[in-house]
Amino acid sequence: MQKFAVMGHGVVGSGVVELFYKNKDSIITRSGDEMDLKYILDIRDFPNLEYCDKFTKDFEQILNDPEVTVVAEVMGGLNPAYDYTKRLLLAGKSVVTSNKELVAAKGAELLGIAKEKNVSYLYEASVGGGIPIIRPISQCLAANDINEILGILNGTTNFIMTKMIREGMSFDDALSLAQSLGYAERNPSADVDGHDACRKICILASLAFGKHVYPAQVHTEGITKITGEDVAYAGAFDSVIKLIGRVKKQDDGTIQCSVGPVVLSKDSQLSSVDDVFNAIMVRGDATGDVMFYGKGAGKLPTASAVMADIIDCVKHIDGRKFVKWEEGSNEYVADYLEDTVSLYVRAKTANNEEAQKAIDGAFGKVKYVTFEGAPAHEIVFITEEGTEKDLRATIKSLSSIIEPINILRVCE
Amino acid sequence: MQKFAVMGHGVVGSGVVELFYKNKDSIITRSGDEMDLKYILDIRDFPNLEYCDKFTKDFEQILNDPEVTVVAEVMGGLNPAYDYTKRLLLAGKSVVTSNKELVAAKGAELLGIAKEKNVSYLYEASVGGGIPIIRPISQCLAANDINEILGILNGTTNFIMTKMIREGMSFDDALSLAQSLGYAERNPSADVDGHDACRKICILASLAFGKHVYPAQVHTEGITKITGEDVAYAGAFDSVIKLIGRVKKQDDGTIQCSVGPVVLSKDSQLSSVDDVFNAIMVRGDATGDVMFYGKGAGKLPTASAVMADIIDCVKHIDGRKFVKWEEGSNEYVADYLEDTVSLYVRAKTANNEEAQKAIDGAFGKVKYVTFEGAPAHEIVFITEEGTEKDLRATIKSLSSIIEPINILRVCE
Repeated sequence: MQKFAVMGHGVVGSGVVELFYKNKDSIITRSGDEMDLKYILDIRDFPNLEYCDKFTKDFEQILNDPEVTVVAEVMGGLNPAYDYTKRLLLAGKSVVTSNKELVAAKGAELLGIAKEKNVSYLYEASVGGGIPIIRPISQCLAANDINEILGILNGTTNFIMTKMIREGMSFDDALSLAQSLGYAERNPSADVDGHDACRKICILASLAFGKHVYPAQVHTEGITKITGEDVAYAGAFDSVIKLIGRVKKQDDGTIQCSVGPVVLSKDSQLSSVDDVFNAIMVRGDATGDVMFYGKGAGKLPTASAVMADIIDCVKHIDGRKFVKWEEGSNEYVADYLEDTVSLYVRAKTANNEEAQKAIDGAFGKVKYVTFEGAPAHEIVFITEEGTEKDLRATIKSLSSIIEPINILRVCE
Repeated sequence: MQKFAVMGHGVVGSGVVELFYKNKDSIITRSGDEMDLKYILDIRDFPNLEYCDKFTKDFEQILNDPEVTVVAEVMGGLNPAYDYTKRLLLAGKSVVTSNKELVAAKGAELLGIAKEKNVSYLYEASVGGGIPIIRPISQCLAANDINEILGILNGTTNFIMTKMIREGMSFDDALSLAQSLGYAERNPSADVDGHDACRKICILASLAFGKHVYPAQVHTEGITKITGEDVAYAGAFDSVIKLIGRVKKQDDGTIQCSVGPVVLSKDSQLSSVDDVFNAIMVRGDATGDVMFYGKGAGKLPTASAVMADIIDCVKHIDGRKFVKWEEGSNEYVADYLEDTVSLYVRAKTANNEEAQKAIDGAFGKVKYVTFEGAPAHEIVFITEEGTEKDLRATIKSLSSIIEPINILRVCE
């Protein structure tokens, strides 16, 4: 018989407890061992819950109980989650987490401790909510050299973009709707500014390439500057605008890693991923493109991933060889401006004809895009591939003729 | 140091060997133990290969070598693969396989032996080629009660349907093209008649619901009767025709399981899965819809899945609690005619107006579909939901007025 604890009785934590009691029989069958919930850590009281006797406000009680072999950390935030996780691992308990902020900041260290102590630190729920992605990358694709991962990693911004694309909503209206539906927080910055997606691509990058990538190293842009016009121009180019997190390996051993709105071809499988759904495309040398799709957030999907990790810990209580990441380094993540890209450029201009001449002269070949009812005195074009640095320098050289409104990466 | 053997040096087997040597360093790192290839079993000689010293024609040599802990069975077919696998498992060696025919026919028995002997029998490559699907279902979604699985499980037929839908090709032309590209065999029956997809849905059904489903229990239809007109009618209904394998749990403990061409709404994520790609949608009570997408066949994608299973065996050489299936039973798979469905009915009629009156009278509400240039004297309609048995009886009652050409299930 193994006992587990859940730290945090918020959305995800209460989902884990609910799911455990709902599917208890099959969960025990699949874990191959008797198991039960022993503690729930929360500073609040929940006197009306059926399982109210499980609550404790005292972390030490969990830490010092030898019966507890697995702990789910679903508190979120860096502190005290970091301290608690570290002490639990050092005490020889396995920890599973949905805390992307913590994994993105301290994953290398915590995985290192787990390995040293021969326990597990599992984080399936930290990326893609209920979508299986961490285990498939670390196990199913283990024979591959992964070249690139790109994905729609944040459901809130994908919901907003979908409303803008499908229903012509403005960003502000779509955000308000997302807030009223509970998809976006009152302060939506973590989502709309790309920070949440950034943490997730850091975790995927660290796992896939074995070296920690820290959020501060990743060039991150949000979707707040995207307007209905951008969506329409992209549509005219047979594309949609999606917030994409992306990491790719380079020949020199460094990686390119970024988060930002991307003009994405409708030929991409990712382009039809709508509403609050997430999808992650993994490009391996043997498998080619493999995509994982599902709900990237929400109480039960996320709880499902946490519970699966708990089952895994119970199953492999005798120790498991899990891949850890090395600590990262400054020079490991290359300057995003050195990346070879194609750019969507939307600019104001007083004279379209003159602007077109100047653009053709400076860039050689570009594709112009417009749509019926496009604003006057705007010019939109897609460049050929070049380093972002060079392309931006060329755009700057045209500053007497065009004034950029939005510059986005293009992805086929 | 652990040694493994590969039985069969065909497309998949040679891919496994190639992949092992190509990514050897990272494969060894991920398996957590030194490992090497010791034997390749094949009746043919390959004197020009770099690794020609690994070949043997003698199965007993592999069976009796205590150094060999893991064997990849990539021979295909029931015999001698079944006999070899059984003897290897009984001898305490782990076996991994891409052999869907064998797993679909004998999975319950072989998994039972593996469990008894505390070794692994892994079959990730038997469904979806390089797409991670077996491990995600058995591990990542372990906290879920799965309600339904449906998928595009055969790349050859999906390629043919894509050519018919996108380029207006006839079935025969699309099949010839698939054959000339090496996607279809000279005798294409296993693919186009749905047998391959049937084996795969049997494996998924057995895994998800814990009880073996045998191919003979599954109502299976192929795509040979689908014409360009059907594709056009479906298009007018905002749908595409795809060969879908499907299994769902029923309240009485039985399951519905079938393979056949389905009129699939373009709103479904599966509808945009084209060419030789496969995709599998898993519906769990906690996760909601989760989809897995990628190349369902091919040398390196399939070899990648086999190699991942080998790594897993090497990692967990000390024994692994793997979920086995029970043997199946006759009454476990319900009569497909009892399933509640909506049907697409395409029929000849001498008098469209009279036919429409009779259909309206017999069915109540239906949706009629046509397209510009549709054949004269044909009527096509989509029924409301009912049991397939009742719907077919109603169609039969109209036999003096309409003569069915094709009847397909509709899926939203």
